[in-house]
Amino acid sequence: VDTSLDDSFSREYDVATQKALEDIDICQNEIDQLIEKASEEILKVEQKYNQLRKPFFEKRSDIIKKIPNFWVTSFVNHPLISNILDEEEEECLHHLTKLDVEEFDDIKSGYRINFYFDTNPYFSNDVLTKEFHLGSSGDPTSQSTTINWKEGHNLLSKFEEQLQKNGGSSASSSRGKKRPLETRSFFRWFTDHGDPSSDDIAEVIKDDIWPNPLHYFLVPDIEVENGDEEED
Amino acid sequence: VDTSLDDSFSREYDVATQKALEDIDICQNEIDQLIEKASEEILKVEQKYNQLRKPFFEKRSDIIKKIPNFWVTSFVNHPLISNILDEEEEECLHHLTKLDVEEFDDIKSGYRINFYFDTNPYFSNDVLTKEFHLGSSGDPTSQSTTINWKEGHNLLSKFEEQLQKNGGSSASSSRGKKRPLETRSFFRWFTDHGDPSSDDIAEVIKDDIWPNPLHYFLVPDIEVENGDEEED
Ligand SMILES: [Ca+2]
Ligand SMILES: [Ca+2]
Ligand SMILES: [Mg+2]
Ligand SMILES: [Mg+2]
Repeated sequence: VDTSLDDSFSREYDVATQKALEDIDICQNEIDQLIEKASEEILKVEQKYNQLRKPFFEKRSDIIKKIPNFWVTSFVNHPLISNILDEEEEECLHHLTKLDVEEFDDIKSGYRINFYFDTNPYFSNDVLTKEFHLGSSGDPTSQSTTINWKEGHNLLSKFEEQLQKNGGSSASSSRGKKRPLETRSFFRWFTDHGDPSSDDIAEVIKDDIWPNPLHYFLVPDIEVENGDEEED
Repeated sequence: VDTSLDDSFSREYDVATQKALEDIDICQNEIDQLIEKASEEILKVEQKYNQLRKPFFEKRSDIIKKIPNFWVTSFVNHPLISNILDEEEEECLHHLTKLDVEEFDDIKSGYRINFYFDTNPYFSNDVLTKEFHLGSSGDPTSQSTTINWKEGHNLLSKFEEQLQKNGGSSASSSRGKKRPLETRSFFRWFTDHGDPSSDDIAEVIKDDIWPNPLHYFLVPDIEVENGDEEED
């Protein structure tokens, strides 16, 4: 029983109102318990279907591996992701062979995006993971794999050097705020944990691309036919 | 089978890629079906608990009627609602005896907010309803009861005349955009259907106040003790 409520009831209200407020409080507890039970049941349904979907996602990943550059093509065709892809990063993502999004068992507690790479000139990691923990406080945190860059191929340093030459803002000064488009890059996103509550790129990968990557892989038809060729 | 997909597969890709894309498409259909089935099952859980909660909401409404000015007090204590309450509107809401929020059977299809009034100097309606239909297109629409104002007590006209005297924007010119705070009012909100997709007041009533009005009824303690008295 919430004693602070009882205190405030008795301090300020007449006896009839006090009794009514206590009765509302009892009703409210029943309502709250039913809301809680509904959430638990919905979570179980979500978990059940997550398990049922898993084998199809795995099968899909295996088939996707047969198509060269499937993931980088889907990224380039996505209006938001393509905007943060620096040209060398796009080259690098040709080595991305598999992507998956894992929701944690508890679902509401967070998720993880895994990028699997084959041997490449840029870094020695096989998997780069960025993950989000929503936590009970409601303030999410994120973390990501430390990238083992190969000498002379650190795309993050290159990008930031380039930015400084152009008089762009440094990484530290803009940390935690949405950067202007021209100062954003894939690896800046991957290594940025300044504002995990509004990570638009992670959300797009989880909610747009992962549920249906084929949609983005196939999208470009019209653009390719009407637009200018990018490379020549 | 989606023939447009088949067309685009065969036009542009080699045989092996074409086969892989078709296999991904098959996998994707299984995933989509499972997503659909999960939504249906979650909807059933929500409907079940809506039914289970209903008698407690009704009991709560009956008890609330015993407390004079319960609803207007909860509104005045809510930071957003209080900001759109003109002084005369607040007087009018002293006649609000019951409020309820009905989610439609289909839940995702919309909801209705019912305001029940006792006999009052302002209008002859017993119930004023504002309802939202989400529709299959994704563009929600809203509608509300025509208010039968009593002569000389049309609070909406009074408010708009006052605004025009003060050089404020007219109702029609700002329709469909969030109005500046000083040009917002309860009955302007109630009669405005310009941008039902972002009706912040309706959302606050449905998602903040309706689930726990006691919270807002009881909130003011600290403010009353620290603040200046509004009327004297
Ligand atoms: Ca590009
Ligand atoms: Ca006020
Ligand atoms: Mg390029
Ligand atoms: Mg007042």
